[in-house]
Amino acid sequence: MSFTVKDIAASLGAEAFGDVSISITGVAEPAMAGASDLALAMKPAFAKGLPEGQAQAAMLWAGADWQALGLKAAIVAPRPRFAMAGLSAMMDAGQGYAAGVHPSAIVDASAKLGADVTVGPLAVIAAGAVIGDGSVIGPQCFIGMDATLGQGCFLREGVKIGARVTIGDRFIAQPGATVGGDGFSFVTPEESNVEKVRDSLGEAGEAKAQSYARIHSLGSVSVGNDVEMGANACIDCGTVRDTRIGNGVKIDNLAQIGHNVEVGNDTLICAQVGIAGSTRIGHNVVLGGQTGVSDNIFIGDHVITGGATKVLANVPAGRVMLGYPAMKMESHVEAYKGLRRLPRLFRDVAALKKAVLNADGND
Amino acid sequence: MSFTVKDIAASLGAEAFGDVSISITGVAEPAMAGASDLALAMKPAFAKGLPEGQAQAAMLWAGADWQALGLKAAIVAPRPRFAMAGLSAMMDAGQGYAAGVHPSAIVDASAKLGADVTVGPLAVIAAGAVIGDGSVIGPQCFIGMDATLGQGCFLREGVKIGARVTIGDRFIAQPGATVGGDGFSFVTPEESNVEKVRDSLGEAGEAKAQSYARIHSLGSVSVGNDVEMGANACIDCGTVRDTRIGNGVKIDNLAQIGHNVEVGNDTLICAQVGIAGSTRIGHNVVLGGQTGVSDNIFIGDHVITGGATKVLANVPAGRVMLGYPAMKMESHVEAYKGLRRLPRLFRDVAALKKAVLNADGND
Amino acid sequence: MSFTVKDIAASLGAEAFGDVSISITGVAEPAMAGASDLALAMKPAFAKGLPEGQAQAAMLWAGADWQALGLKAAIVAPRPRFAMAGLSAMMDAGQGYAAGVHPSAIVDASAKLGADVTVGPLAVIAAGAVIGDGSVIGPQCFIGMDATLGQGCFLREGVKIGARVTIGDRFIAQPGATVGGDGFSFVTPEESNVEKVRDSLGEAGEAKAQSYARIHSLGSVSVGNDVEMGANACIDCGTVRDTRIGNGVKIDNLAQIGHNVEVGNDTLICAQVGIAGSTRIGHNVVLGGQTGVSDNIFIGDHVITGGATKVLANVPAGRVMLGYPAMKMESHVEAYKGLRRLPRLFRDVAALKKAVLNADGND
Repeated sequence: MSFTVKDIAASLGAEAFGDVSISITGVAEPAMAGASDLALAMKPAFAKGLPEGQAQAAMLWAGADWQALGLKAAIVAPRPRFAMAGLSAMMDAGQGYAAGVHPSAIVDASAKLGADVTVGPLAVIAAGAVIGDGSVIGPQCFIGMDATLGQGCFLREGVKIGARVTIGDRFIAQPGATVGGDGFSFVTPEESNVEKVRDSLGEAGEAKAQSYARIHSLGSVSVGNDVEMGANACIDCGTVRDTRIGNGVKIDNLAQIGHNVEVGNDTLICAQVGIAGSTRIGHNVVLGGQTGVSDNIFIGDHVITGGATKVLANVPAGRVMLGYPAMKMESHVEAYKGLRRLPRLFRDVAALKKAVLNADGND
Repeated sequence: MSFTVKDIAASLGAEAFGDVSISITGVAEPAMAGASDLALAMKPAFAKGLPEGQAQAAMLWAGADWQALGLKAAIVAPRPRFAMAGLSAMMDAGQGYAAGVHPSAIVDASAKLGADVTVGPLAVIAAGAVIGDGSVIGPQCFIGMDATLGQGCFLREGVKIGARVTIGDRFIAQPGATVGGDGFSFVTPEESNVEKVRDSLGEAGEAKAQSYARIHSLGSVSVGNDVEMGANACIDCGTVRDTRIGNGVKIDNLAQIGHNVEVGNDTLICAQVGIAGSTRIGHNVVLGGQTGVSDNIFIGDHVITGGATKVLANVPAGRVMLGYPAMKMESHVEAYKGLRRLPRLFRDVAALKKAVLNADGND
Repeated sequence: MSFTVKDIAASLGAEAFGDVSISITGVAEPAMAGASDLALAMKPAFAKGLPEGQAQAAMLWAGADWQALGLKAAIVAPRPRFAMAGLSAMMDAGQGYAAGVHPSAIVDASAKLGADVTVGPLAVIAAGAVIGDGSVIGPQCFIGMDATLGQGCFLREGVKIGARVTIGDRFIAQPGATVGGDGFSFVTPEESNVEKVRDSLGEAGEAKAQSYARIHSLGSVSVGNDVEMGANACIDCGTVRDTRIGNGVKIDNLAQIGHNVEVGNDTLICAQVGIAGSTRIGHNVVLGGQTGVSDNIFIGDHVITGGATKVLANVPAGRVMLGYPAMKMESHVEAYKGLRRLPRLFRDVAALKKAVLNADGND
């Protein structure tokens, strides 16, 4: 894999300077760059490492003096972070899965594989499954009965897709991701304590021992186009209709999406986020790592939650939330500033009580 | 799969009305129902969608006027949510795993398979394992040495059961669930900082760099009857004796149950819950999603924790808990109401100080 | 597997008393011990169970009167918890994986296997992978292209190692652990709301709908010696350079380590911990279960976080932290003591206002 500086710049829509015929075989941090690496120094602070490395060419910030930095060539992109998307796609060495259907894979005779589909060793494709053109089903993956994947999908090792799941084009799933587990839905013969607590907001009343009956998931999962799923992340089936994931949704490792959840387009769900059953998440939402969202609520478009926010109630569109329970970020910052100063406040109030009420102040 | 309205009502112990000979092939939300679907409209609000769909029959709330809703037949169950358990079991199309032992499965000659056991493609069953009658070991599952599963178990694709694990009847596990990983137990040659902090409640004193030695898990895991486990959920082995899961326990996706933990009967453990080592959980407990429970503590029977509750100390039976650190739900609601009003309280106290002490109020 | 009391004591560097020729085949809790079990009663409280069991020999606390406890032999170790490491290693019955390369494993011709390597049934080892002497690759594992594992590694069933991952000696991974998923790194064509919020600390301004472009991970993962990983835990690849895990790091089940993260030596990462991208964790750190650490921050050496601590900013070396957002443990205890007493404080201040300002106190 080798590109000239000129080729790279052209493909990124970036400007190239100097000897643009230099051949590039990889990218590296400045201090660790070899002679054929493109050093990444998109901020002045990163350029300090250039003398330690051997890069002849670098990707730099707008206005950088590449010659003064001792380089023979440079690329300058208007939004360097966005340029990384194109650059990293060009330079990705990939997983090296061999093309074609591996002889050890178990593909049901009734499954329909499109053109140029790769099926890795020891993968299983069940009856009635449909795989779109150019998709890659990695080693040891499982594709369930009547599941449908679109074109250009890429499933890493050990991804599991359950029966009747429908997935659009260009789906990417990291190792161990699972789509289509049964939803977690159980019911007791009589009203349970949890139902009582929800009605009374706190009082369980008489505790009664009951066993649970399971509610089977009759729905499956529908996933749009350009969706990604992280390692060991999970999406559960819906109870009656499908759980629905919109287009362009990105889900990180170990995230959990419960039954009946609906996620809007271009929403980002970071690692270890949990979304409980029947909750709706809008478009262009960002849920920070370890965010938790209660069941049966609604998160509006463009909402952002900070890391570990626990959302227990509806959030209107556009809010930036933080904390447990979730508050508007400004309120959270204020409230926790106060929390840290509480011991002092108690002392102040005790002193006031003593002064005013002639009381002991010792509560 | 087709049932008459009469058959369905009979099997649910529900009442049927109208043309009970209508043939039903599935269930659906009212607006999406086809002519042979049973529409689910167990609350009046859900019935609004009926005209948009084509359902001839519906499951309705007690007292509903099915004829006025334009239906030809109706089913009314005394507790509709509970009826869903039976109805969903009847209508579940399942995963379609082919019966019998797939030729690609690797079953050790010394493993004992009961009658009518299914072993999916590329599953591995190790030496000495015992699988009860009618159990289904899904594709790519692993059953370890001397592990025992009861009758009527159902393991989805890629479930992993370690050596010497004992599991009762009707166990259900979603994709990627693992039982019998080693417990997380490490020890330093000399007292560690964590041990010091636990003793002193906050002071680590002199920090010393030490490496960890592992404590192997000599116990395994014992699981009762009618237990369920979610996708990619984990139960670890005990150190000396088995980690123990009671009867009827339901564990959701990505939950973690540490070494030596004991979980009582009919306890519900929601998604991403973590229970640290050697903690005991009572019967009929409900741990809401993302709840965390410290090691070596005790949670009494019938305790309920709200989503993301972090339990750092014992909880007596019957309590409803919320927050981090966990408080009784009423106290939590009170405390956080106060937290949001803290900035105002600081201003009030500053004003009071000024008025009373003639002080500046600026702390 | 059978050892004399004398042998066990010698191997643990412990003292033996009484009939040290007694043959021991296992260890057990005192009440459950059989005649050939070594009972574990390292604290006086545990010795109460001895009469209920049948143990002839026990591991006891320093100074215990073994004869008065009715035993024929005893072992006394200076630090009993540390002795458990050696004792449990001796007594571990293991997983029973058969030695050698199973005929169903798919090992690429270009992979290099050291001496005495075990490869379990249905494991896949890709082109260019290198496995060190004595390592065990469990059933259904996946080792990616050009990945390197050192000597004496032990991978349980279904562990997945991606392309170009480098792992040292004696690595242990529990079922379903994954190393080398792609990092979660996405970028919008124009500045996103998250970027705006980070700049303004709270104001997203005009919300604009944008789709994400993925940044591929060009780095891989480098793991030191003596590292352990729990079931279904995940370590992601770095963006440009490798994500780096030091020597002696222990990672529990379902933990998540993001792209570019660096973890120092002998650090303990408990279950369900999440470390976001590009964060650096020092040496000898302990992150309690469900701890969350924001991206791009730094945690100093010897830091300890209590369960579910959410670290949103740098933490200097040696700190003991708790809470969300993380505070020093003493401050947290103080602040939350205050939080619980807030309702009373509001009443006190209202009374003061009434007394002082003749105001209504109703805010």
